[in-house]
Amino acid sequence: MIVVMAPGAGEDQIKEVTSRLELMGLSVHRSSGEERTVLGAVGDPGGVDFEDIRRLPGVRDVVKITVPFKLVSRVFQPETTVIKVGKAEIGGQRIALMAGPCSVESEEQTFQVAESVARQGGGFLRGGAFKPRTSPYTFQGLGEEGLSILRRAADQHGLAVVTEVLDVSQVPMVERYADMLQIGARNMQNFPLLREVGRSKKPVLLKRGMSATIEEWLLAAEYVLSSGNRQVALCERGIRTFETYTRNTLDLSSVPVVQQLSHLPIVVDPSHATGLRDKVGPMARAAVAAGADGLMVEVHPQPERALSDGAQSLDLAHFEDMVRRCRAVAETVGRTL
Amino acid sequence: MIVVMAPGAGEDQIKEVTSRLELMGLSVHRSSGEERTVLGAVGDPGGVDFEDIRRLPGVRDVVKITVPFKLVSRVFQPETTVIKVGKAEIGGQRIALMAGPCSVESEEQTFQVAESVARQGGGFLRGGAFKPRTSPYTFQGLGEEGLSILRRAADQHGLAVVTEVLDVSQVPMVERYADMLQIGARNMQNFPLLREVGRSKKPVLLKRGMSATIEEWLLAAEYVLSSGNRQVALCERGIRTFETYTRNTLDLSSVPVVQQLSHLPIVVDPSHATGLRDKVGPMARAAVAAGADGLMVEVHPQPERALSDGAQSLDLAHFEDMVRRCRAVAETVGRTL
Amino acid sequence: MIVVMAPGAGEDQIKEVTSRLELMGLSVHRSSGEERTVLGAVGDPGGVDFEDIRRLPGVRDVVKITVPFKLVSRVFQPETTVIKVGKAEIGGQRIALMAGPCSVESEEQTFQVAESVARQGGGFLRGGAFKPRTSPYTFQGLGEEGLSILRRAADQHGLAVVTEVLDVSQVPMVERYADMLQIGARNMQNFPLLREVGRSKKPVLLKRGMSATIEEWLLAAEYVLSSGNRQVALCERGIRTFETYTRNTLDLSSVPVVQQLSHLPIVVDPSHATGLRDKVGPMARAAVAAGADGLMVEVHPQPERALSDGAQSLDLAHFEDMVRRCRAVAETVGRTL
Amino acid sequence: MIVVMAPGAGEDQIKEVTSRLELMGLSVHRSSGEERTVLGAVGDPGGVDFEDIRRLPGVRDVVKITVPFKLVSRVFQPETTVIKVGKAEIGGQRIALMAGPCSVESEEQTFQVAESVARQGGGFLRGGAFKPRTSPYTFQGLGEEGLSILRRAADQHGLAVVTEVLDVSQVPMVERYADMLQIGARNMQNFPLLREVGRSKKPVLLKRGMSATIEEWLLAAEYVLSSGNRQVALCERGIRTFETYTRNTLDLSSVPVVQQLSHLPIVVDPSHATGLRDKVGPMARAAVAAGADGLMVEVHPQPERALSDGAQSLDLAHFEDMVRRCRAVAETVGRTL
Repeated sequence: MIVVMAPGAGEDQIKEVTSRLELMGLSVHRSSGEERTVLGAVGDPGGVDFEDIRRLPGVRDVVKITVPFKLVSRVFQPETTVIKVGKAEIGGQRIALMAGPCSVESEEQTFQVAESVARQGGGFLRGGAFKPRTSPYTFQGLGEEGLSILRRAADQHGLAVVTEVLDVSQVPMVERYADMLQIGARNMQNFPLLREVGRSKKPVLLKRGMSATIEEWLLAAEYVLSSGNRQVALCERGIRTFETYTRNTLDLSSVPVVQQLSHLPIVVDPSHATGLRDKVGPMARAAVAAGADGLMVEVHPQPERALSDGAQSLDLAHFEDMVRRCRAVAETVGRTL
Repeated sequence: MIVVMAPGAGEDQIKEVTSRLELMGLSVHRSSGEERTVLGAVGDPGGVDFEDIRRLPGVRDVVKITVPFKLVSRVFQPETTVIKVGKAEIGGQRIALMAGPCSVESEEQTFQVAESVARQGGGFLRGGAFKPRTSPYTFQGLGEEGLSILRRAADQHGLAVVTEVLDVSQVPMVERYADMLQIGARNMQNFPLLREVGRSKKPVLLKRGMSATIEEWLLAAEYVLSSGNRQVALCERGIRTFETYTRNTLDLSSVPVVQQLSHLPIVVDPSHATGLRDKVGPMARAAVAAGADGLMVEVHPQPERALSDGAQSLDLAHFEDMVRRCRAVAETVGRTL
Repeated sequence: MIVVMAPGAGEDQIKEVTSRLELMGLSVHRSSGEERTVLGAVGDPGGVDFEDIRRLPGVRDVVKITVPFKLVSRVFQPETTVIKVGKAEIGGQRIALMAGPCSVESEEQTFQVAESVARQGGGFLRGGAFKPRTSPYTFQGLGEEGLSILRRAADQHGLAVVTEVLDVSQVPMVERYADMLQIGARNMQNFPLLREVGRSKKPVLLKRGMSATIEEWLLAAEYVLSSGNRQVALCERGIRTFETYTRNTLDLSSVPVVQQLSHLPIVVDPSHATGLRDKVGPMARAAVAAGADGLMVEVHPQPERALSDGAQSLDLAHFEDMVRRCRAVAETVGRTL
Repeated sequence: MIVVMAPGAGEDQIKEVTSRLELMGLSVHRSSGEERTVLGAVGDPGGVDFEDIRRLPGVRDVVKITVPFKLVSRVFQPETTVIKVGKAEIGGQRIALMAGPCSVESEEQTFQVAESVARQGGGFLRGGAFKPRTSPYTFQGLGEEGLSILRRAADQHGLAVVTEVLDVSQVPMVERYADMLQIGARNMQNFPLLREVGRSKKPVLLKRGMSATIEEWLLAAEYVLSSGNRQVALCERGIRTFETYTRNTLDLSSVPVVQQLSHLPIVVDPSHATGLRDKVGPMARAAVAAGADGLMVEVHPQPERALSDGAQSLDLAHFEDMVRRCRAVAETVGRTL
């Protein structure tokens, strides 16, 4: 870390910054020029809050020389992590396909979708049993019954189950039914939950928070890895902006940015990002072209009867068309689907 | 709810929307004009997801006629809720003053601050024992020891304790020490936690999420109230924008907006919002002038030695100066402090 | 337009809204139910500011039944506009390729790039002669000399010139050299300039403003069309969000959204959007997959010596690689490049 | 400027950065440690685009040691600029009061408001004669007739006129009628216009762009000052965020931030920021408490009949009440109004 003092910073201010850095276990080298003083701090800055230093009196700026994450960094592990779940994988040459209803509503609905996902070559059945809903008065999911339906539908068609866990206390139950634990956007910085799934043997799908920077997202993944679980995939699902036509703004540039910074595979969810059924196909193709390692989409046999997010769900015919067209794009970037 | 169909919407689309609304328990009145059809849906739309209807094929727009929250609404309860905690209160004629260190670090630090808060007439000692930190490698708080220090410091000076609870499993422990349970910005949509504190006898301070709309914030409060706990205060602490000079952008207009929509009292935290010590005073005064029911500020005897957020903490002298100047503003808006 | 009054809105408030709508030339139909009154306003609402009505006392909500733009709407003209510039076109089956340096710096630089653009099958040479720069102290462009260099380089290689015009007074000069007039992001709502290029015979490339909604962008295009010039292409170049890793956030979902709402073709500029050279290729491929009608990229023979935006410019080899890979993606969406 | 190279940056990358900095006229000092190389560049970096350097291959980070603006900086001029316009001033002990209709609509309307502004002790009559409107089909202002009405109304009541100029070509006409030239939010980065008003003898009111950072805003002011006009006041009018309840989000923390960075006075416009009449009063009081040097508000004798922005305009009685209450707050911060 390099700390640049403001011109006119007093000797007492320089000493305060120095002693604070030393308290943090760093060794400090001082270089005072005509105009200003620059302090170089060497050591392991893992525990240092750069913002705190930046805002000390007399400090003009702080340069982070090391990135704040370690285990998720591509410097730490150059080759991309490949997560294996049953016969499916995320991060390999083949693009992972995760599809299913927003909410598990019934056996019939779920088995129908699972059959279609399997026929399209998908590896993962997704579906919510516990739904985080903005209003307490809307449908909150079937709970354990939903998990059981998911498990049986997936088993019948040789799929893996990925489903959301909302709270530390739910982890053991969800682990019994699911092959991969999903952390939703609203929980991206639920640190006790991140630590808990970090102690799980099941891989984790970590959605980006609605207003999370890429750095914060990677640090959230760092919580999981540093608790012992290295099997983490990231999922871009749109960020919040001033644009109101789409539900969120899908940030596809996060795909190459994450792939440069980290070895973790990255999946794109165009359904939640756009909130608009007829925009899912174009955005899924764009995600594949941008290099995504997986796609997660909402599929429902009768979207117009869905109990949640029907307007963004594809029906089975549109889903099959989407896969076919994405497959063509995948070939042009050297992947299969 | 009024659903406006697009010009050219087909009869099948109109029927699909109609049958979907009826499935939700609403009765539907149809009015077809030359250019378009408008559907009026009457009934209790508490459980309806408007966005889903808006995105059905053939729908141009949806008007929400009832607001999506009930118990928190000023229509439901016209008079402002006054929360009483020991001798202190929030929502009354006197502006609540909540102050203390970002993190509880030691007995000495906490007792020193508590003494100052009490001398300034403050009612609440704030301080973090469990800290949600972006990086897993930074200081995470003293845990239960921190709670115990807070309790003793508050008791010695006749203050109430307000402190953050991070997870459902922590609620019983935090309840033993605290007078008011704080839900942090990152947990504003941690719905299991909201329901859990909704079952508590202790009042709740609900911080606005970093990118939460006012409507989402009020719906989060609705989770707490609908679980049985009516003692909720809201806390504006800045939202995330593109501006980087300040940590967040303090949205002071949320104060009169919330006060119009809801009967819940609203507190403003200028420390987290700005992240800059010398901006805390002006923003605290502005909050009082805007009509805030309380102020929450970070105070530390030696901010330059703080283990977290030192750069935004006031020292004791600046804190006392801030209170004195806010008191003058309070008088001009008919309040005391 | 439908105006929904709040429950409890007084007769005087209803009358005020009614008379205001009538003042605007609309005829108003009133329907009062048990709980509330709804006003339907029929007529040409072209000149009505919906927000004003929405904020009148007693008004709960306003539904826009007609979209606020006309000439740019796909309802008004179902088939996509195809802009022909010399042998090149935008909006046809072939994806338009626009490339060149951020700033025109010298003959040698510009001719070198033009040669490469032509060899790759591109139709447009882009380059700035007048540069809008955030600071008054940075390089502001070569002015008319730059235009002359662009013209000669384009002519030698059979390309069309697209370049930015900053001000009404510059239009005649830029028109003499350019084949297409670019309106930059900072000028998207410079209404006198929009009207002025609306009176030009040259086609217009209208960049999206840094924080413009899609509706505002289409209304800016409406200014140009309503002044007489129907030859307008839109250009998505990233919007401003809280993410700092990329310069802006490329909003690729604007491509299918615009194509649904409007008949105007849409071009994507991944160079300005990301600000990062190695992200241009993936985002260009994604844009093609999403259905973009054109690509605009910055190319420089020696990006490391560029006087502006060098860090986001491709060198000639990377540019040629980008085109080759985009061409493969184009085929999968039924286009050529 | 300090450039920090990435660990593993090659010798060729270091040389490229060095030679580029030297090309910009800076002298470069190299310091290579075990892990990485740091380059210090000394000289006048006025013309350097830091972002370009930051994005060169092999560069980890760049520290700006000097701020990018000069003439507007408080380092350059420690005492606050006081702008004198007739008997009124901005930046002095007395808070400037600017009020008037959004659009000039008629003599009667304008004279009525002017009388009220004068009676309240205001110094400036505001009002739009040329209105920048999102849609080409809404009321665009009375043009020169509007300017003439403004001038006569102001003269009758001893007020100064502040009004918007939309384009370079309008400057001479607006200068004939106005005492102060307003640059609207949409034109904050219209650089030819900034240079043109920079050559005027009339003071300038520069509104913050809808998505402008404080640094960009100050650099826009730098354009005006560097063209010769030192009489510039800034105007905060809200920034664009995801919140939809208010039209924009008033960023009141920009007041103390600007006052620390710059000697230019800062005015706050709560009418455009909130878009809601009943939020104007609380936000005006908050602005005064935060230290604003002026207030700009929209006033209309019959807001419900206004041709633009009626919903955010105060009527005369509410305006007078607002002034009275702001005056009380002003006293508590050592100002008059």
